[in-house]
Amino acid sequence: MSSIYWYDQQFIPAEAVRISPQDRGYYFGDGVYEVYRVYNGRLFEPGLHFARLARSAAGIKLALPFGEAELQRALEELVLRNEVSEGTVYLQITRGAAPRNHLFPADARPVVMAYCNEMPRPAAAMEAGIRTITLEDTRWLHCDYKTLNLLANVLAKQTAAERGAGDAILHRGGTVTESSASNVMIVKDGRILTHPADNLILHGVTRAVALRLARAEGIPAEERAFTVDELLAADEAFVTGTTVEVTPIISVDDRPIGSGVPGPITRRLQMAFARAIGLDR
Amino acid sequence: MSSIYWYDQQFIPAEAVRISPQDRGYYFGDGVYEVYRVYNGRLFEPGLHFARLARSAAGIKLALPFGEAELQRALEELVLRNEVSEGTVYLQITRGAAPRNHLFPADARPVVMAYCNEMPRPAAAMEAGIRTITLEDTRWLHCDYKTLNLLANVLAKQTAAERGAGDAILHRGGTVTESSASNVMIVKDGRILTHPADNLILHGVTRAVALRLARAEGIPAEERAFTVDELLAADEAFVTGTTVEVTPIISVDDRPIGSGVPGPITRRLQMAFARAIGLDR
Repeated sequence: MSSIYWYDQQFIPAEAVRISPQDRGYYFGDGVYEVYRVYNGRLFEPGLHFARLARSAAGIKLALPFGEAELQRALEELVLRNEVSEGTVYLQITRGAAPRNHLFPADARPVVMAYCNEMPRPAAAMEAGIRTITLEDTRWLHCDYKTLNLLANVLAKQTAAERGAGDAILHRGGTVTESSASNVMIVKDGRILTHPADNLILHGVTRAVALRLARAEGIPAEERAFTVDELLAADEAFVTGTTVEVTPIISVDDRPIGSGVPGPITRRLQMAFARAIGLDR
Repeated sequence: MSSIYWYDQQFIPAEAVRISPQDRGYYFGDGVYEVYRVYNGRLFEPGLHFARLARSAAGIKLALPFGEAELQRALEELVLRNEVSEGTVYLQITRGAAPRNHLFPADARPVVMAYCNEMPRPAAAMEAGIRTITLEDTRWLHCDYKTLNLLANVLAKQTAAERGAGDAILHRGGTVTESSASNVMIVKDGRILTHPADNLILHGVTRAVALRLARAEGIPAEERAFTVDELLAADEAFVTGTTVEVTPIISVDDRPIGSGVPGPITRRLQMAFARAIGLDR
């Protein structure tokens, strides 16, 4: 755990950070967040994260209290002060503290909090793949905003764990959207398919990177929604996300995907991703 | 504002309450809440509130750290200590503080916080009624759990205010569910209609009280969903809620409801409600 937080534009010890009980993040989940990956002490794709953060903040009508360059300097300093080499940075911004009222407060200042963690790459899951279950997607209709309203995601992930699975794949009436905390892609006849970046999914940074890498590898990749049936009939499937990178899905509801082991296109994409972050594998 | 909070099973000064940045309420909105009305220094319908709280908590798999009698004693003492005569009690319970992970923590203790406020009855709005707008209901599919995931409600209420309205009436594809923070009822040909208490609406305590009072008054009241068109063609319409009680809707999207003033059945229900809380009007 990070020993130093960036909080209210200052670097302070973790134990000194205390949140007001009136923080709108606490009352309403009224805030947005990002999780950055740190490789070799450097933020991965900070520009994509900032663009998404700005989009999420605009979506909930929250004015960010910093610009892109200022934020990046602060987060880089945070990583340096915490001496994190391989890990994550968690950043969240809420609308601030004010007496409880659904209406935006006239004079609240956004509360910004960021910290970082050491976290190795998920080598075991990337190698072996994960088992998954399917669940109806019960989330709201702005999954494209990365907000603090995450209860549906929490419950889906917990249900997956209770059923012995690594993740839950969500669908709306049979159409796969994403998983509890990552995007889902399938491979069929050599082509990658994934849900379009609309209001029903989070626009994952790793999703965008994976699509870019796939195309650079000459693998056709299409943003087109697919069904649970298409998932079950896929040759390969995998999730993409900041902490899971490219992790194979080996089964869905106890039915094997493809031959039940990570497939060749998933492996190619994993290798391309490793090269993109400056590693051999 | 309450000067004394009930926090972690103790009564402490408001300024001493500080929330951990790791509280799951802050990360995920992972918690549930209730707002009680206080009339004449007494909690209104605490049994209905506890039943709903227990249902919300079960819905998100959160074990309440108190029983009904213990909670009621604590909240009554809170009201007494704060010398609130007419007001509200706000109570929330989160899953506790733990390093951020969607999965439920093994050893976190729920964080309980309650406070109260003086708040007069909304006499002006109850007398004159409110103007409303309609908005698509973008919330998740468990609006029956009273959780801290309230961003869609916040944005709806804010949009209403920005358009000069007192509230936003939400609908899913034309079927009215409820408003941003209260239930909606219409009157047509002497009958009251309101959305059934399913997963798409909050099961309002005041909604239940209003239905009970209507039936006791001999007014037929049916739990049946209605459309925006039926709302616009209604003879009367009103919202029910803990803080709004029974407040007339006089217009929807700038179109008057009925004759554009509060109707006779709404007035009868307001009087019945006043009697139910031991007042003359």
